Parts: sequence; structure tokens; C-alpha cells
Amino acid sequence: MTHDSGPQAEDAQPAAAAAELAAARIAELEDQRLRALAEVENVRKRCASQVARTKQEAEAEVASRWLPVLDSLDLALRHADADPGSITEGVRAVREQALGVLARLGFARREDLGATFDPARHEAIAARPDPDAPDGSVVEVVRPGYGDGETQLRPAQVIVARAQ
Amino acid sequence: MTHDSGPQAEDAQPAAAAAELAAARIAELEDQRLRALAEVENVRKRCASQVARTKQEAEAEVASRWLPVLDSLDLALRHADADPGSITEGVRAVREQALGVLARLGFARREDLGATFDPARHEAIAARPDPDAPDGSVVEVVRPGYGDGETQLRPAQVIVARAQ
Repeated sequence: MTHDSGPQAEDAQPAAAAAELAAARIAELEDQRLRALAEVENVRKRCASQVARTKQEAEAEVASRWLPVLDSLDLALRHADADPGSITEGVRAVREQALGVLARLGFARREDLGATFDPARHEAIAARPDPDAPDGSVVEVVRPGYGDGETQLRPAQVIVARAQ
Repeated sequence: MTHDSGPQAEDAQPAAAAAELAAARIAELEDQRLRALAEVENVRKRCASQVARTKQEAEAEVASRWLPVLDSLDLALRHADADPGSITEGVRAVREQALGVLARLGFARREDLGATFDPARHEAIAARPDPDAPDGSVVEVVRPGYGDGETQLRPAQVIVARAQ
């Protein structure tokens, strides 16, 4: 053994050990990276099925809230055969019930009579002079709007007062 | 330079280069692993907001399908004031419309009269002898069921024929 080969031989062994450690670390990291990528894929797939399930559940949940309204309609019609005069009252109650369902879902019927025309909430289908109403205010709601702001289901169709 | 130090020195240089390459590879893999983990987190967060948005959209979509039914109820009541006799016909039409909304959502009203009692679809609220009906068959639907199988919104309440 020469004088300089000593230190070099000593360096070579740690270098081999370091190389082995590095290889192990690389294998471990590659494995972890592949697992993380697989996890991304799994989360994506789970998410897609969760979204589909959520949609179905929300649809069923909202649809089921209408069953009592249907029951009331059935009842009003059953009574109508026995007592034709009772149906109007029954149907008014059904309408209140249906409005309640929409309101509890966050889509209350809006009362826009007298409001200032707002293109975000109103669809003007006509304009007419009205001596009692301020110019540009809603003088008649032809078809009511439901919900408000981001939860607006539809704007109200209105007739607007115009200067005479 | 000695005879053996030569090869050792030659080995040392590739070993250093290999160590450098390994370190670079480790840094790269660690970076990729962290990115993949961050991506998992992002996908989770996006999924949560997508689920919330899907729920809102489905609720609004299903709720909005009922607005024409409300419009028809309004119309039937408006006509009722002018012609009280017209309302029954109007309300029958509203009921058909409402049943159509549920059917298109996949929750058709079931016709269970005469069916064999099935605890998954029927809720027996009474039993009565019926000479014309097979034992265990539905002789009256008190409250109809909607939807079927996995999409059943509610079972039908029925009266079942029992042996005399």
C-alpha cells in the first residue's frame, strides 16, 4: 500500500456507502412521489363520484319537499268533487305551501310592486303612464320573480311607469 | 503517483460526480413529491368547493322547475275569481304539470293498486278483507309513492287485502 492510497481507500468506502444511501433515498422518494401522484388521481376520482352523488341527493331532497304540495293538490281535488265551493280555498292553501317550500330553499317570491326598475331583477315587458307612480317604478308585476341576488331563480316580468 | 492510487483516483472522480448527480436527483424528487402533495391538497379543496357549488346549482335547478307550477296555480286562482267553475279543471292541469316535473326528475308517481305488498315500496297502514283481491295485494293507495328502487322518494301508504 502506498502512502497516498491510504486516504483514498478510506474515502472510497464512505463514497460507496453514501452512494448506496443516496440510491435508497432516491428509491424512497420515487416511491413517495408515485404514491402522491396516485393519491391525486384517487382524490380526483372520489371527487367526481362525490359530486355526482351530491347532485343526485340534492335533487332528491328538493324534489321530496314538493310531495306535501302534491298531496294537498290531491286532497283539494278530492274535496272538490264533494264540495265544489271548497276548492278555491284549498288551492290558495296549496299555493301558500308551495311558496313556503321555495322560501325555505332560499328562493322566496319577491314583491316588486312599487320598486324602482332594476334590470338585474326585473324584465320590463311594457311601460305605461301612471299619474300615481314615480317614473321608472314598477306599476304591475305580470310574473313574479323568485330568489334574490346570486340565488335569483328568475327575474320578475313587470310593467314600468313612464313619464306622461 | 503509485500503481494502485491511479485507479483509485480515477474511481474517486466518478464517485464525486455520481454523488452530485444523486444529490441533484434527490432534490428534484423531493421537489416533485412536495408538488404532488400540494396538488393533493389543491384537488381536495377544489373538490370541496365543487361539491358545495354542485349542491347549490342542483337545488336551484330543481326549484326552478316548479316555477311554472306556481304560475299555473296563480292563474287557476285568478280565473277562479272570474269563473268559479273553471278552477277544478285548472287544478287538475296543475297536478298533471307537477307530476310531470317529478317524473322528468326521475321520481314518477307509482301506481300500486293491485300490486303485491312489498315492504320496500309499501307502508301498510291497514289490512281489510276483500273478496275480489288476492291475499296480500294492495287494495287501496292512501298516499302514493314516488320514484322507485334507489330513487324512491317515499313509499306508498297502502291498505292490504287479508284473508277473510
